[in-house]
Amino acid sequence: MQMLKDRIVKDGQVIGTEIVKVDCFLNHQIDVDLVSEIGKEFARFADLPINKILTIESSGIALACATAMHMGNLPVVFAKKAAPNTMTDGYYYTEVTSFTKKAVYTVIVSKKYLSEQDNILIIDDFLAYGEAAFGLIDLTKQAGAAVCGFGAAVEKAFQGGGDKLRKEGYRVESLSVIASIEDDHITFRE
Amino acid sequence: MQMLKDRIVKDGQVIGTEIVKVDCFLNHQIDVDLVSEIGKEFARFADLPINKILTIESSGIALACATAMHMGNLPVVFAKKAAPNTMTDGYYYTEVTSFTKKAVYTVIVSKKYLSEQDNILIIDDFLAYGEAAFGLIDLTKQAGAAVCGFGAAVEKAFQGGGDKLRKEGYRVESLSVIASIEDDHITFRE
Repeated sequence: MQMLKDRIVKDGQVIGTEIVKVDCFLNHQIDVDLVSEIGKEFARFADLPINKILTIESSGIALACATAMHMGNLPVVFAKKAAPNTMTDGYYYTEVTSFTKKAVYTVIVSKKYLSEQDNILIIDDFLAYGEAAFGLIDLTKQAGAAVCGFGAAVEKAFQGGGDKLRKEGYRVESLSVIASIEDDHITFRE
Repeated sequence: MQMLKDRIVKDGQVIGTEIVKVDCFLNHQIDVDLVSEIGKEFARFADLPINKILTIESSGIALACATAMHMGNLPVVFAKKAAPNTMTDGYYYTEVTSFTKKAVYTVIVSKKYLSEQDNILIIDDFLAYGEAAFGLIDLTKQAGAAVCGFGAAVEKAFQGGGDKLRKEGYRVESLSVIASIEDDHITFRE
């Protein structure tokens, strides 16, 4: 998605060789016009019988909602981050490691909002090592729901999460795929 | 907003006399059609020279984005909840007490995304005691920005936050105002 790649180059903040922050248009300040265009792109999953979109708070919410709007107003469910050992009665829960934040957190979804009738599209802002993605897949599986696909705005290919998902047979669509970050320069995979 | 009130009555989960959970359409599972209608309602603030919408993660994000879309794609900034004593260099920060969760948390906004040029509309899902609202107002003031108004999807009038804001001269628009919750019955203020 050229518009997104251009924006990452223009406004992304590169830190070292692993991190690009998109705080000024996706993760802290949100450009809703861009977000809406991203949602339109993710509607490419509309060939699948998806009935619900799953994401994780907070950065995934705007993207998931925009996608839902472009796919016939599907319901969005966002998984919540909870402190470890939070009371998890009535919730599916899993643990996710954040390499960026060097922390492990518990992620929960109420059993009311995921069921074996569901065909889930997972949407997130970043796909890096795949930790959040596999966490959301785990929650989906616990509910007996099907994962139809995974959509990421930004995939950091060099961290391997996307290819790990593809190798396991998941359909992954990333709207921008960063091959490498070197000397403040971002190289996208074609 | 009748559509919202009807939904609260139909799907809200009353707990005691103080809490109504709207997890199944706003706070955990999101009905994007309803959220879009809410955004359309909040566009009533368009008579003011608002240039940015401020909210707080996570439940405010979808509503703020929908509002921004109906007000000419304004930028949205969401304040982040951080653990107390988080490094706050480069951030405005304040403390907010959550009566529902019986916790105090630090709320931060990067100094990059609020400035004295900004005319801010604050959007949130709930307006209860007003703690989050006054926290967001505090952040806005620290930046020297102006608060043009406050929009809440659900105001719990019996907890007084809305009237406290109005008494201080803020324009507050709540799309549903709950006067009381008794015996599982929600009474709206006309």
